[in-house]
Amino acid sequence: MSRQPVASFAEIRSLLAELPGPDQQAMQAAAQREGQLTKPPGALGRLEVLTQWLAAWQGRHPPRVDRPRVAVFAGNHGVAAQGVSAYPAAVTAQMVKNFVAGGAAINQLCKAIDADLRVYEMDLDRPTADFTLGPAMDEEECAHAVAYGMMAVEPGLDVLCLGEMGIANTASGAALAHALFGGAAADWVGPGTGVQGEGLKRKIDAVAAGVAANRAALGDPLGVLAALGGRELAAIVGAVLAARLARLPVLLDGYTCTAAAAVLHKLRPDLLDHCQVGHCSAEPAHARLCERIGKRPILDLAMRLGEGTGAALAVMVLKGAVACHTGMATFAEAGVSGKE
Amino acid sequence: MSRQPVASFAEIRSLLAELPGPDQQAMQAAAQREGQLTKPPGALGRLEVLTQWLAAWQGRHPPRVDRPRVAVFAGNHGVAAQGVSAYPAAVTAQMVKNFVAGGAAINQLCKAIDADLRVYEMDLDRPTADFTLGPAMDEEECAHAVAYGMMAVEPGLDVLCLGEMGIANTASGAALAHALFGGAAADWVGPGTGVQGEGLKRKIDAVAAGVAANRAALGDPLGVLAALGGRELAAIVGAVLAARLARLPVLLDGYTCTAAAAVLHKLRPDLLDHCQVGHCSAEPAHARLCERIGKRPILDLAMRLGEGTGAALAVMVLKGAVACHTGMATFAEAGVSGKE
Repeated sequence: MSRQPVASFAEIRSLLAELPGPDQQAMQAAAQREGQLTKPPGALGRLEVLTQWLAAWQGRHPPRVDRPRVAVFAGNHGVAAQGVSAYPAAVTAQMVKNFVAGGAAINQLCKAIDADLRVYEMDLDRPTADFTLGPAMDEEECAHAVAYGMMAVEPGLDVLCLGEMGIANTASGAALAHALFGGAAADWVGPGTGVQGEGLKRKIDAVAAGVAANRAALGDPLGVLAALGGRELAAIVGAVLAARLARLPVLLDGYTCTAAAAVLHKLRPDLLDHCQVGHCSAEPAHARLCERIGKRPILDLAMRLGEGTGAALAVMVLKGAVACHTGMATFAEAGVSGKE
Repeated sequence: MSRQPVASFAEIRSLLAELPGPDQQAMQAAAQREGQLTKPPGALGRLEVLTQWLAAWQGRHPPRVDRPRVAVFAGNHGVAAQGVSAYPAAVTAQMVKNFVAGGAAINQLCKAIDADLRVYEMDLDRPTADFTLGPAMDEEECAHAVAYGMMAVEPGLDVLCLGEMGIANTASGAALAHALFGGAAADWVGPGTGVQGEGLKRKIDAVAAGVAANRAALGDPLGVLAALGGRELAAIVGAVLAARLARLPVLLDGYTCTAAAAVLHKLRPDLLDHCQVGHCSAEPAHARLCERIGKRPILDLAMRLGEGTGAALAVMVLKGAVACHTGMATFAEAGVSGKE
């Protein structure tokens, strides 16, 4: 990024005016070629739509999926003290070590899709404040985390997958969704890594308490992000914005990642037009959240791991789509008869 | 195949008694390892189930997805004369040439998944009889096509994807489904390559007429296959059986392919336990058919092309599943804390 890092919400807001829209010409070139390939019109279904989406947001035809990156942001959360996770907070740092050592699910999927994996550890020994008692972050801290997330975008990439790791962060994601879209806290809370019974009740109570304790912030989506989010979630917001500036299509991962991105949807719905949701999480509220932001996930495989795993798997579909689009013969080239 | 090729329905039936069941030990070994990997239990969702299914039907742990094959069977159909397709029958042979030249969608997907593609051309200049007037094939012809399909299974493969190409064969698949599972002809007929209006009405009428003209055959699923199927559909039945004998898991493709395999489900429901449906077709009856045979497709991307494309794309998910299963660290190896 050649630009100065953003350091305030005002700077983030001024960035929004600079964001490019879709490249209509590249998108039309993709649609036109699809119509000539040796298959009935539309027979590749969503693959055709995804190819056109890639062309529109990469700003080129044909689009490419040769250099995907998976960026995983890790953060710790004060709300973990409320007993909202099945795992101790120490697991966040332990899993970061596992990412670095190559032992996590996302490492294996990155190998499978030939992606560059970057893991961003965000002050793990300094959790955000417990949002049930007040804001998790102040504006400056949140804006810095947004700026930090923008660093995940570098020249030469063609797809960016976003993921997160952070014990207690499904509670944070649920609080964001609840604050942004209303309803009852229970509508937005699920088992996360596996809380049940009393633990699930504590998690619902914590989310409700978080929204109640931060009423003053609810009018502004960026205020919601600071009050109820976490550093890794703010970083995802930054990465989504930086990707838009760099004409880099984004695959969002599961519930927590989508909840972070939903902050931008609430600011202005078109801010997520360069994003797809890679996978519909088994976390029950994810389908509802995707509906609210107008996204249909590419895959639905009952996963609920985070780490960017659902986004990384969806890269496989993008690769298949682009391979068909660029490699197939046209009716004329292949000497195949058209419709009668 | 070292066995003698089957030449009659009696020989196919005697084969059924020899088919192996799942390898419970391999499946349990896979389940046990999943429980130790650095993720909450079950967090990889369907990937975990698919890994266990692969282990059970490959009869080994860990399973592998290094040598997938895509077998595409092509046939021509007398019922094409009823005007049930949007394309002329000559397209079947033209598309086979396109497969051989590398220009079709399935060629690009095979490259993407590093699969061996085999195309089996089945007497394209001699279409089956028009099933609206009587049986498409007699028993001997059908049994030979089943035997031919068995050749798609060879040693060393680890997953077999099945696909088909044949102008008018969604009418044949619809007739199979209607004959096997009842209901109205219209329940099982869709646009296929793109028939609408009068063409769709002709297709529904042809399917209804086919079932009416072949009442005598409806008591026996293999009789249904001969009466209403086609050579490429009978070959799919043979490939599914040969794969079971060879401990080779199968990915079925879209509607027509699944309709062929459903003949075996009707013979004995467990005959498809080594099969998954790769993709839910946009052809509306496919979801209904999958429900009848108790299968939930792995992908749902609104494709409706056939050629094995939906099955080939699903191999990507299997590769991801096995990569996670074999490559991830255990909690103990990674020094990650378990549940509190």
